[in-house]
Amino acid sequence: MTAMTKQFSLSHYCRQKVSLLEEALACYTPADACPPIIFEAMRYSLFAGGKRLRPIMLMAAADAAGGCGADYLPVACGLEMIHTYSLIHDDLPAMDNDDYRRGKLTNHKIYGDGMAILAGDGLLTAAFSTMLSQPNVQAATLINVVKEIAVAAGAAGMVGGQAVDLASAGQTVDANTLKFIHQAKTGALFKAALRAGAMLANASPNQLAALTAYAEHFGLAFQITDDMLDVTGSQDKIGKPVGSDMRNQKVTYVTLYSLDGAKHLAQQAVDNALLSLQDFGSEAVILRDLVEYLINREA
Amino acid sequence: MTAMTKQFSLSHYCRQKVSLLEEALACYTPADACPPIIFEAMRYSLFAGGKRLRPIMLMAAADAAGGCGADYLPVACGLEMIHTYSLIHDDLPAMDNDDYRRGKLTNHKIYGDGMAILAGDGLLTAAFSTMLSQPNVQAATLINVVKEIAVAAGAAGMVGGQAVDLASAGQTVDANTLKFIHQAKTGALFKAALRAGAMLANASPNQLAALTAYAEHFGLAFQITDDMLDVTGSQDKIGKPVGSDMRNQKVTYVTLYSLDGAKHLAQQAVDNALLSLQDFGSEAVILRDLVEYLINREA
Repeated sequence: MTAMTKQFSLSHYCRQKVSLLEEALACYTPADACPPIIFEAMRYSLFAGGKRLRPIMLMAAADAAGGCGADYLPVACGLEMIHTYSLIHDDLPAMDNDDYRRGKLTNHKIYGDGMAILAGDGLLTAAFSTMLSQPNVQAATLINVVKEIAVAAGAAGMVGGQAVDLASAGQTVDANTLKFIHQAKTGALFKAALRAGAMLANASPNQLAALTAYAEHFGLAFQITDDMLDVTGSQDKIGKPVGSDMRNQKVTYVTLYSLDGAKHLAQQAVDNALLSLQDFGSEAVILRDLVEYLINREA
Repeated sequence: MTAMTKQFSLSHYCRQKVSLLEEALACYTPADACPPIIFEAMRYSLFAGGKRLRPIMLMAAADAAGGCGADYLPVACGLEMIHTYSLIHDDLPAMDNDDYRRGKLTNHKIYGDGMAILAGDGLLTAAFSTMLSQPNVQAATLINVVKEIAVAAGAAGMVGGQAVDLASAGQTVDANTLKFIHQAKTGALFKAALRAGAMLANASPNQLAALTAYAEHFGLAFQITDDMLDVTGSQDKIGKPVGSDMRNQKVTYVTLYSLDGAKHLAQQAVDNALLSLQDFGSEAVILRDLVEYLINREA
């Protein structure tokens, strides 16, 4: 396939899946289920134009394993709720203190710090009630999947990575600590997304292992390019001020390895991710396209 | 039974269960699973001397339904983690801004606001991975139980109640709003605790309905006595300054109905709770003792 056809098939897939996801997210956060004030605050960030990358990866992994990704909307939407809650809490003044996210004011700038904390809490909790509503999956499999997502999102994963990141601000951090922060803060949830999709679709052990390896390389490539965008990106496209890592004196792949070194590492991670998929055929086309899109993304 | 024997049997039951729970809570938050900084912050509040009322109620409900409460430690501990996270977040400067809790400095006074937010997030997430590790229960039953707890803890329950409470600070609140706040903020999780215990122990529909009614009256009695303690209690026994509701201009059962009126309502709720248990024999002794202890508690 040419680069243009690839881009077309990926963007077609993503548009289709984002539309399914947003319809489902609206259903899973009904207006009449909770007080208007918390409903509004949760919805504000949930529908602030995210790329829906994690749920798309869950669905693409299910497709790659021979299932149908669209069958797993409740678990996929739960992942997006977890991701959204983490952004709301990360943006708080007590954490990264960011005023903008995706070109819009952050949650606490609109609703105040207290309500933003609660909106995050509400989304994290809704993620679990939503995921546990997943139909047409064996109950024991669903329990394993949701448990794995919880571990990845918790103190051993995303929350733990954020905690070390917060504790390290303004300090010199070595390459191993940087690697831990990223693996925990971003990588763990990507890995859980891919593995959840595979497990829900009853992947074989070999498929699950390959998709797990893919996820690890993908997560690394994502983080390196994220660090690069903070230096080379434009605020218009990213939707938040660039250079915030430098202002917050954060160690990144760019400060550790220079821009060229980071670019090289990112390409290596992309190559490894593609290699992990060598035993898959055309059913993994979206996963292949996704990782190549990563390296060239502008936001 | 005399009042003294009752008190003895309740306090014996609670001591025994608290000891089981604290051992299990320590197992479910292992030091080697996450970075020390978040481990310490989570443990600080988890082992700050709580009464463990919600997990004890889960176990007592399972006992009442003919099961064995101690068989359900993972789900019981998950409830305590959810309760603890909600206290950490409620105490933050952006919310109730409390410096003391149970006679100890609040989480953010020790670890800072950012780490306290993350400690809460970590506990909420750990609650779900822990609950989903519950062995010896049918997978479909466990899913229903954990889903019900998530709904009770979320925007339709505890988080929603806290949101309305936060939005109402300094405003005149009518009796209906006060009732909603309390039912959502405190009552929903009590109800989920009782129902979870009953469902895990395979309660009959009649038993489940009776325990649900008990939980609703219990929650109301708990909240009224909580409001009363803010006026009549002593800081030494409660472990935090009294009179904070008045300082925060909060509407409470005492400001709405006077102290005598609140006492009368609390006694009514206790009587109704006991009435709900009329079809149970001695297997519900702890639930009966718990609700009578409520009305006379000093902390």
